[in-house]
Amino acid sequence: MSDYQSLKEECCEANRELPARKIVDLTFGNVSVADRSKGVVAIKPSGVSYESLKPDDIVVLSLDAQPDGDHNLDLDKFRIEGALRPSSDTPTHIRLYQAFRDINSVVHTHSRNATAYAQAGMAIPCMGTTHADYFYGDVPVTRPILSEEISRHYEWETGNVIVERFEDLNPNQINAVLFHGHAPFVWGTSGEKAVETAFALEIIAEMAMKTQLLKPDAASLSRAQLDKHYLRKHGANAYYGQK
Amino acid sequence: MSDYQSLKEECCEANRELPARKIVDLTFGNVSVADRSKGVVAIKPSGVSYESLKPDDIVVLSLDAQPDGDHNLDLDKFRIEGALRPSSDTPTHIRLYQAFRDINSVVHTHSRNATAYAQAGMAIPCMGTTHADYFYGDVPVTRPILSEEISRHYEWETGNVIVERFEDLNPNQINAVLFHGHAPFVWGTSGEKAVETAFALEIIAEMAMKTQLLKPDAASLSRAQLDKHYLRKHGANAYYGQK
Amino acid sequence: MSDYQSLKEECCEANRELPARKIVDLTFGNVSVADRSKGVVAIKPSGVSYESLKPDDIVVLSLDAQPDGDHNLDLDKFRIEGALRPSSDTPTHIRLYQAFRDINSVVHTHSRNATAYAQAGMAIPCMGTTHADYFYGDVPVTRPILSEEISRHYEWETGNVIVERFEDLNPNQINAVLFHGHAPFVWGTSGEKAVETAFALEIIAEMAMKTQLLKPDAASLSRAQLDKHYLRKHGANAYYGQK
Amino acid sequence: MSDYQSLKEECCEANRELPARKIVDLTFGNVSVADRSKGVVAIKPSGVSYESLKPDDIVVLSLDAQPDGDHNLDLDKFRIEGALRPSSDTPTHIRLYQAFRDINSVVHTHSRNATAYAQAGMAIPCMGTTHADYFYGDVPVTRPILSEEISRHYEWETGNVIVERFEDLNPNQINAVLFHGHAPFVWGTSGEKAVETAFALEIIAEMAMKTQLLKPDAASLSRAQLDKHYLRKHGANAYYGQK
Repeated sequence: MSDYQSLKEECCEANRELPARKIVDLTFGNVSVADRSKGVVAIKPSGVSYESLKPDDIVVLSLDAQPDGDHNLDLDKFRIEGALRPSSDTPTHIRLYQAFRDINSVVHTHSRNATAYAQAGMAIPCMGTTHADYFYGDVPVTRPILSEEISRHYEWETGNVIVERFEDLNPNQINAVLFHGHAPFVWGTSGEKAVETAFALEIIAEMAMKTQLLKPDAASLSRAQLDKHYLRKHGANAYYGQK
Repeated sequence: MSDYQSLKEECCEANRELPARKIVDLTFGNVSVADRSKGVVAIKPSGVSYESLKPDDIVVLSLDAQPDGDHNLDLDKFRIEGALRPSSDTPTHIRLYQAFRDINSVVHTHSRNATAYAQAGMAIPCMGTTHADYFYGDVPVTRPILSEEISRHYEWETGNVIVERFEDLNPNQINAVLFHGHAPFVWGTSGEKAVETAFALEIIAEMAMKTQLLKPDAASLSRAQLDKHYLRKHGANAYYGQK
Repeated sequence: MSDYQSLKEECCEANRELPARKIVDLTFGNVSVADRSKGVVAIKPSGVSYESLKPDDIVVLSLDAQPDGDHNLDLDKFRIEGALRPSSDTPTHIRLYQAFRDINSVVHTHSRNATAYAQAGMAIPCMGTTHADYFYGDVPVTRPILSEEISRHYEWETGNVIVERFEDLNPNQINAVLFHGHAPFVWGTSGEKAVETAFALEIIAEMAMKTQLLKPDAASLSRAQLDKHYLRKHGANAYYGQK
Repeated sequence: MSDYQSLKEECCEANRELPARKIVDLTFGNVSVADRSKGVVAIKPSGVSYESLKPDDIVVLSLDAQPDGDHNLDLDKFRIEGALRPSSDTPTHIRLYQAFRDINSVVHTHSRNATAYAQAGMAIPCMGTTHADYFYGDVPVTRPILSEEISRHYEWETGNVIVERFEDLNPNQINAVLFHGHAPFVWGTSGEKAVETAFALEIIAEMAMKTQLLKPDAASLSRAQLDKHYLRKHGANAYYGQK
């Protein structure tokens, strides 16, 4: 049996959760799950339907993958297990794992409301406590990717643009970003948790949009209430849920 | 068998109705049901999924719970039955039962359209007869909660802000409020009725929003028609439904 | 067996189609079906859920019912069969049958998008061929009902306001109206056809709303194209569907 | 057995996929599939429900059909197989096959968001990578059809208006058009692929609409990113999906 069996199962399960949560259409989304101790990441194969996905379809690659000096990144060289071609977004995922050291899963979807914000080039403002329960502040949007970045290694540079956006942000407190003109990337400590956060992101995007349509100048949640809600669910003094 | 078996069953049933009505996502909602004669309230445990909820998971507490002089409220001291930690919103529920003497159930959701109004800090105006069938006037929005209130006992003060909003309103005729920047709280004479009202609230929020987007200055329903619709379903001369 | 068995079955079936089409919530809707040769109308009982509705629950009344000189209308006097209280909207239905001589079914819903137009006091403009396939022109909105009309017999006067709106319109070509501040009433030659039209109304309301939000001054369909689409589905030269 | 059995099965299957994808209501949609080598097209019969559709219901016609000098087009003369009357949109489909030589399937729906753009007379701008994954540029809208065109052969002229719109566009790179005041027409190399594209069109219409409501002057995707996304899924250097 594969050394990565449970990792592939977790990854498969997390990918299958995407249509169950109604946050993907067609094959517009993928989840990866990393095993930091083994230095590997498991990810969905490209263009395969979620319904037919099996653990053995999952591709396992080295977390050390990166483009060479000519901006080429041959994923075959970094593949450890799996016969299928990994998601075309694989280099973006790997770039995020290398930069955000505490995360173990990355989720990419084109969920409709979050994607609308990404297309508008707008952050999702923290308009209420539902947002504050999941994200410790606005969900940021990146700058547009530049032509010269696209002409280097597109998916790797996509990761770089995200990392640049988090220069002054804590990726452990804000677990998502909107890629300008593209769609959200979300992350977390496990596949299950990251997919839940991707679902929460879609809901808060819908509610923020409706809020802004009703009242374009609606005020964001106060700092005190953001602190209260985020911290009652996260960190040492959390008291939401069961101990 | 527990003295509170039927109360716990009603509470469990009402909580399970929330996802059936599509007015909760994730674990963003809870229902409590009170037994006034016994001085107790049954409520959903915190962070537990609706699908797996069983009557024995329900927590029973005293209706007399309140914070001490230092704004601490140790719910364990007021717990009568149940091994799980009650919803973090429990103090808000209890505050409402203490102030609104005729209600036997409180429902809290983050249903998406009603929450958008709460986030916009806007009341839901009575734009039509669907609204008038359930609420005898606009569904009000509270003021934002203050930093100093958050730093006292947050969930208890949340209840206080709602009670303050109803100083000049009749909670038996307007069974819901939008908490500014948060979400709706709804109440009623039974768990079933309160959940039905929470569902009606979500529908009228959707229809009011669409009305206001179509025509920002659309007029509210006339007082005469509001009276007619509310009173044909409520009170001594009601003639809607079966006798 | 009842003389009205097949009428009651058609009425029951048509009412049960409302939730299947997702054009009612809770008990906000009802269908009646008339048998002109017998001078009767079958209608849903008030406040009964669609799921549990059976043909024997359906109430049969005389099509001749009308208020007395004091604006009282005791439906019990006009009831022919059925133990339950008929829909509170029964007088509106009967008023429409008396005025619109070719219709055999009336449907009332609070379907969400059509109701938003009714609440905005706006007609649904004919923005496209989907509309023209069903309605030969804009779906009109009534004026608001007056206080003095409400204080007479409300549901009967509701019918009168609709009839007044059709003074210069052909109810056989425009099978629906939006009651200002209330919701749509729809009619047709059979229960099945009227419910289909109520569903089509909801769809064209959604599409008109989105069109108007995208482009507030979007032009209506040309007269020539309206004629083409309406007449290829209706009347002597129709060529849509099977012969 | 019919020479066209597999063609009729593919056509039936593709039509049944329309409600599964939720891109048709009632009977507002149809799919045809052509067999270029045999010079025929298979199409849905008019006004038949998708649920009950069987391969033997599918109508097979000659791809050479066209109106005579008096603008009459008697489809019976061009029918090769099938007892039912073909979709009233058949002449539009055939006109497209004659003009766009590489396509083997045409899909017509009134999917709600794409139809809203058609009714607004607006192209769907390329606001993001989801769009660029399917369409190599904006999805264009036609001019309104003229009265004199309607009075000739309406459905044939509908095809002509579309063909005119593509004078300077490549129908193999932009597989869809919005017919002004009507709805989308979509095409592709197979029934399955064309229906998938019709579904993608509806999604990108929803996301573009939300983007434009959030930010009316939101910028389109850059040319470089449009190239990148379209070309990584289409053409000689595509690297999305499995080889």
